[in-house]
Amino acid sequence: MLTLVLAESSIERVPKQLAEHPSVIAQAQRRGKPPGSLILDRSYHHSGMRMLERQDPSQAFEKRGRPDIAFHILLQVLGSPLNREGLLRTYVHTTEDKVIEIDPQIRLPRNYDRFVGLLEQLYEQGSVPTGEHPLLRIQDCTLTRLVDESRASMTIAFSTVGESTTMKDACSLMTGTSAPVVLIGGFAHSHFEQSTTKIADHIFSVDKEPLDAWIVAARVVYEYECGMKLPKKRLRVTEGRAFNNRPS
Amino acid sequence: MLTLVLAESSIERVPKQLAEHPSVIAQAQRRGKPPGSLILDRSYHHSGMRMLERQDPSQAFEKRGRPDIAFHILLQVLGSPLNREGLLRTYVHTTEDKVIEIDPQIRLPRNYDRFVGLLEQLYEQGSVPTGEHPLLRIQDCTLTRLVDESRASMTIAFSTVGESTTMKDACSLMTGTSAPVVLIGGFAHSHFEQSTTKIADHIFSVDKEPLDAWIVAARVVYEYECGMKLPKKRLRVTEGRAFNNRPS
Repeated sequence: MLTLVLAESSIERVPKQLAEHPSVIAQAQRRGKPPGSLILDRSYHHSGMRMLERQDPSQAFEKRGRPDIAFHILLQVLGSPLNREGLLRTYVHTTEDKVIEIDPQIRLPRNYDRFVGLLEQLYEQGSVPTGEHPLLRIQDCTLTRLVDESRASMTIAFSTVGESTTMKDACSLMTGTSAPVVLIGGFAHSHFEQSTTKIADHIFSVDKEPLDAWIVAARVVYEYECGMKLPKKRLRVTEGRAFNNRPS
Repeated sequence: MLTLVLAESSIERVPKQLAEHPSVIAQAQRRGKPPGSLILDRSYHHSGMRMLERQDPSQAFEKRGRPDIAFHILLQVLGSPLNREGLLRTYVHTTEDKVIEIDPQIRLPRNYDRFVGLLEQLYEQGSVPTGEHPLLRIQDCTLTRLVDESRASMTIAFSTVGESTTMKDACSLMTGTSAPVVLIGGFAHSHFEQSTTKIADHIFSVDKEPLDAWIVAARVVYEYECGMKLPKKRLRVTEGRAFNNRPS
């Protein structure tokens, strides 16, 4: 079982200081929602975010307003054979220390606006759907606590400042352990906080250039599958089935 | 050099029969564009598309209105080390026999609406930006002609109806040839047309269940990189650089 954590993901609601910015009000009107219930998004609120950055340069906005990153990663990993086998747990940890727990059986919307709508609903209600068996649930939780509670046998983070290693070699380390946890940055630029790197047993860099987080995530999941020979195992099942279905 | 073709992709402008449908008019007004210049999108025009399907069941709408599929695939493959090395050519072939040629150096918008905006511009102008060195160019071209002109040494298509093979084995076939072409369906459901499967030297199925096209694309590119030992080669360059940068 692999646990994949998108760490320090750029997901949050529009902050109070931006609630009256024209870019936010326009979007709120278009969607018929209160400004404070919108998810911050650099694509739509760029001018407002730049204004805040200029007013208070200590505000680190580079790691904010990119819910699309989690979207691209989730589409890659939730559709994988590993997840379909029930061998993947996926969590989204955010810069505000919230954790979104994802039911592996969720079928995520393929459309970005609908994904963001789902996040808005999640922040509003705490879970989606509400009730006993939510597909998404959000709670206050630090990354340290999340990794602790997943009883990680080994924690590996991927970062450009890590030790140069191929993805294959990084994943072969995990294949031998019972409950590996992988941390991938859910942000566009910048680096992990020290509090994150401290959790990791290994920090690896798998290319000479920074790769998009969704590319790293896709490769981790695939190499982990290969390490446990899942591609062959799943094809054998098909062949078996095809054989059984032959008219006798 | 690998050539990746998204074949029969679900990208087209809103058809005339839908131009006056409320779902299309509403979106056209919101975006300040004529209805006919919009890209057909199941997420927004679903009710209109269902109406057309009911009126004329021979209209195969299942393969239409999913530009998001090309978006997800392109984000995966254009950011890959293979593409950054200039060793990947990517084309989007559409159900209407148009081909979008993509400059490997393009930096695609990360936001879906902006990607669709780019497509609208492309269909309007024929290229983006207009001028001598476009990053995107669209032309009328059949898939057969595209594969012919790329002088394919081997053409491999991925499809659930293909021969069961692991991705690793499928890609190892390609590594030995000079100019392999891979066809991945740029649609959600259904299968390749016969005219497409006829072009392929091999048709492979890499899992017992249908996989999202963007997952298959990510894995093809990664396995092709591994086959040519690109991950190791690129890391060696970094180490060299790091060494050279040390203060003497």
